Amino acid sequence: MPSPIPSSETGMTQTAIRFFGLGLGPGNPDYMTVRARKVLETADRLAHFCKRGKRGNARTIADAIVGAEPEREIALVYPVTTEIPADHPDYAATLRPFYESAAAQLLAEIEAGRMVALLCEGDPFFYGSFMHLWWRLKDKVPTEIVPAVSGMSAAWTRAGAPITWGDDVLTVVPGTLSEAELTRRLSGTDAAVVMKLGRNLPKVRRALACAGLLERAIYVERATMAEEQIIPLPDLPETTEAPYFSLIIVPGQGRRV
Amino acid sequence: MPSPIPSSETGMTQTAIRFFGLGLGPGNPDYMTVRARKVLETADRLAHFCKRGKRGNARTIADAIVGAEPEREIALVYPVTTEIPADHPDYAATLRPFYESAAAQLLAEIEAGRMVALLCEGDPFFYGSFMHLWWRLKDKVPTEIVPAVSGMSAAWTRAGAPITWGDDVLTVVPGTLSEAELTRRLSGTDAAVVMKLGRNLPKVRRALACAGLLERAIYVERATMAEEQIIPLPDLPETTEAPYFSLIIVPGQGRRV
Ligand SMILES: C[S@@+](CC[C@H](N)C(=O)[O-])C[C@H]1O[C@@H](n2cnc3c(N)ncnc32)[C@H](O)[C@@H]1O
Ligand SMILES: C[S@@+](CC[C@H](N)C(=O)[O-])C[C@H]1O[C@@H](n2cnc3c(N)ncnc32)[C@H](O)[C@@H]1O
Repeated sequence: MPSPIPSSETGMTQTAIRFFGLGLGPGNPDYMTVRARKVLETADRLAHFCKRGKRGNARTIADAIVGAEPEREIALVYPVTTEIPADHPDYAATLRPFYESAAAQLLAEIEAGRMVALLCEGDPFFYGSFMHLWWRLKDKVPTEIVPAVSGMSAAWTRAGAPITWGDDVLTVVPGTLSEAELTRRLSGTDAAVVMKLGRNLPKVRRALACAGLLERAIYVERATMAEEQIIPLPDLPETTEAPYFSLIIVPGQGRRV
Repeated sequence: MPSPIPSSETGMTQTAIRFFGLGLGPGNPDYMTVRARKVLETADRLAHFCKRGKRGNARTIADAIVGAEPEREIALVYPVTTEIPADHPDYAATLRPFYESAAAQLLAEIEAGRMVALLCEGDPFFYGSFMHLWWRLKDKVPTEIVPAVSGMSAAWTRAGAPITWGDDVLTVVPGTLSEAELTRRLSGTDAAVVMKLGRNLPKVRRALACAGLLERAIYVERATMAEEQIIPLPDLPETTEAPYFSLIIVPGQGRRV
């Protein structure tokens, strides 16, 4: 028997939900939603992606609320430890069977009557790897997505830098694009966010310079987490290695009344 | 004496904070953050913008948590009832003195020892009118911004439509731009969000059509609120009047593994 989710004040909750895309927000547990806390506390299974021998990124966000609970946890271990570039033929060949079997594993849990929450960093439907399982399960089981504060919201909040004013246009790009494509997409925008930095940081820095945005760019690492770093991009040493939780914001300069 | 904010689990809380930009999320109180709930319950004053004779938009989001509490409320009443276009000379001439006096009013409360929270719909630093007061007060009083689930996150969540996959680029535009400018900014993007619809809806629809995005566009009204509406934009009657809480999403179609 699945544990029912406590009914919400607002009547939006469906007790028949079996699969949750659970947005946990940017890191600090105070920035989880009330709904996320409820699901985290009551789900029968907490699933998360991780690399072999490492803690999952989304799982670390839940640490402040959920201790070691081996009976509730399902670790979905990626078949590779280094990242394969997405345009490499091995990428789909390796990841597709992994997502297929992860989806089958969660489906088996759900069919055994358990309520399964897949933990997501930030907001689930915004560049989330969770989406690859959602896509495979959404027509098979009743599903609920719990929206969350995104990593970029956390970044502009903590940097004290409103991202868009008045008529500003915001462009969000993943750092995985080519340098030429990054430059093209960033040129002429009023405000920007660059996600997924990691090894893409030197390329992203060059593209921002080409687009004339380097001077206004702010590097934000682990927004709202314990080891948070906020540094104007021009001041960031060229040798900095960007961790997984890092992004760049370029705040807009639109109409201020 | 100000009431101290209860100290958080994470040590991020500064008890000396006197002014809060309080992001309340998209509407449903379950989607407020734990931090927002705490500030809402403990602040000495809850300020909000509104039009004469109308309830404020952000204030309505707090209704489920905060009843009528005249002693805590500060209504900041806009000096105009209809909207002045932002490029009209009267716009700054009318709004600037209003924001100046609203900032002075809140500053007086804060200097009298009270903790003041200004209620914001969605995420405060994302197209928030709150920013005009923050700008005036931030160097005068200790300030905290509470990030929140944005209206657009709520919209793509409730529409069951992941907004960005893999290498997708997301463009966010305000519907207040000219038709030519909207068309130019939307053309060639992978995913889009159009904020601030209202009377701009017919113009936005034409621009989306010009940019080749009309077929994929979804209209979302009052996401996560009681009267929520989600309609493919091509099916929306041309005569529809878009309320304040409405936006359009164009979900990306990027790499699915
Ligand atoms: C696969 S995407 C998922 C994004 C997530 N769904 C969200 O709403 O932010 C992962 C990227 O999000 C960004 N990110 C998420 N949380 C962050 C945080 N707390 N600080 C800095 N960057 C963050 C980083 O750029 C990271 O590479
Ligand atoms: C002044 S902007 C403020 C945006 C807000 N700070 C946010 O994070 O969503 C107001 C616009 O946000 C959008 N919006 C905010 N909440 C919404 C909701 N629940 N449903 C639909 N649109 C919403 C509408 O386009 C509205 O015109």
